[in-house]
Amino acid sequence: MDSQIRLQNFFDFIIEIDKLKSIFRQSYVIPSVRKENDAEHSWHISIMAILLAEYSNNEIDILKVVKMLLIHDIVEIDAGDTFAYDTKGNIDKFEREKNAANRLFSLLPSDVKDEFLCLWNEFELNTSFEANFANALDRIQPIMLNYMSNGKTWIEHGITYNQVVERNSIIKNGSEALWSYILDILDKSVELGYLKK
Amino acid sequence: MDSQIRLQNFFDFIIEIDKLKSIFRQSYVIPSVRKENDAEHSWHISIMAILLAEYSNNEIDILKVVKMLLIHDIVEIDAGDTFAYDTKGNIDKFEREKNAANRLFSLLPSDVKDEFLCLWNEFELNTSFEANFANALDRIQPIMLNYMSNGKTWIEHGITYNQVVERNSIIKNGSEALWSYILDILDKSVELGYLKK
Repeated sequence: MDSQIRLQNFFDFIIEIDKLKSIFRQSYVIPSVRKENDAEHSWHISIMAILLAEYSNNEIDILKVVKMLLIHDIVEIDAGDTFAYDTKGNIDKFEREKNAANRLFSLLPSDVKDEFLCLWNEFELNTSFEANFANALDRIQPIMLNYMSNGKTWIEHGITYNQVVERNSIIKNGSEALWSYILDILDKSVELGYLKK
Repeated sequence: MDSQIRLQNFFDFIIEIDKLKSIFRQSYVIPSVRKENDAEHSWHISIMAILLAEYSNNEIDILKVVKMLLIHDIVEIDAGDTFAYDTKGNIDKFEREKNAANRLFSLLPSDVKDEFLCLWNEFELNTSFEANFANALDRIQPIMLNYMSNGKTWIEHGITYNQVVERNSIIKNGSEALWSYILDILDKSVELGYLKK
């Protein structure tokens, strides 16, 4: 009976997180006709983790990175997406998302709830090599989408080169090599008029 | 210089696979207002792999399962989605998808191309414990979406209980426990009129 409840708890969570497909971000899918949702974003950065692991500054447990990335945005089912450059929205972001993590992960059996809360906290507080690398990918992906979409989101919100560098320089904690690649992309973005200098 | 080409190859692939977000499946996202795309589906089943690994019939390398699931549908960027119950479309599916795998994975550095081709083949031919479990999840997820969407896709296509059981009984090769759970869902689906007996 207990084992039936455990299995049902997993499926309750699996059904609940379907909602992540309806949480839209500010980035555009590359043909630029619509915005990307959190489920698509999470899939994209999880593959990036597998492909780009060799560029991590430090040795990492890649399964742990992928787990973090697959679940890191689930809190937005309750807390919504907060745009990276929304100063006001970012003030209470952690508090809103912590409440969301508690509600959503509580659908799971308690051992898995504890594991997911730990992974989510570690990612948010950026307190391990795995979190450093996962956070780097979470920042790199929207920069690439923006670049490939002719800077659409940056232009819509009047974002400057300095804002992007300041906000995203934590990429270098995860990977110096990828940060160097992204700095080149940002230089090209200024040249092409996607970003204001 | 070679290392710069390698990094650029990874990013070329990362940009190319953004297209997976525009390949739509027959299943509906649960509020049933629109169909699900392959990127969302791949994210969903990758989390399911992490959650449900304990129900695998055999001991599995979970990172390998997740890799398979993250990349298994990328071929549909070229080959399109083939509906599970489209008998005609399924005749040349493997051939179309094999060509797609060759083109798409060739964007990657050759060592990673070889790894991804192996993983994709293993998944398609269902020739390992990891592939058995990955294939089980790939079948379970749309059944759950259909069930939660009041059988919308099944009703639209006039699908019967026997068709679903026949098509999906390979779930039991990956997990007897999950197949038993799904058989209960299918019985309920008949009772509720979502599936014709």
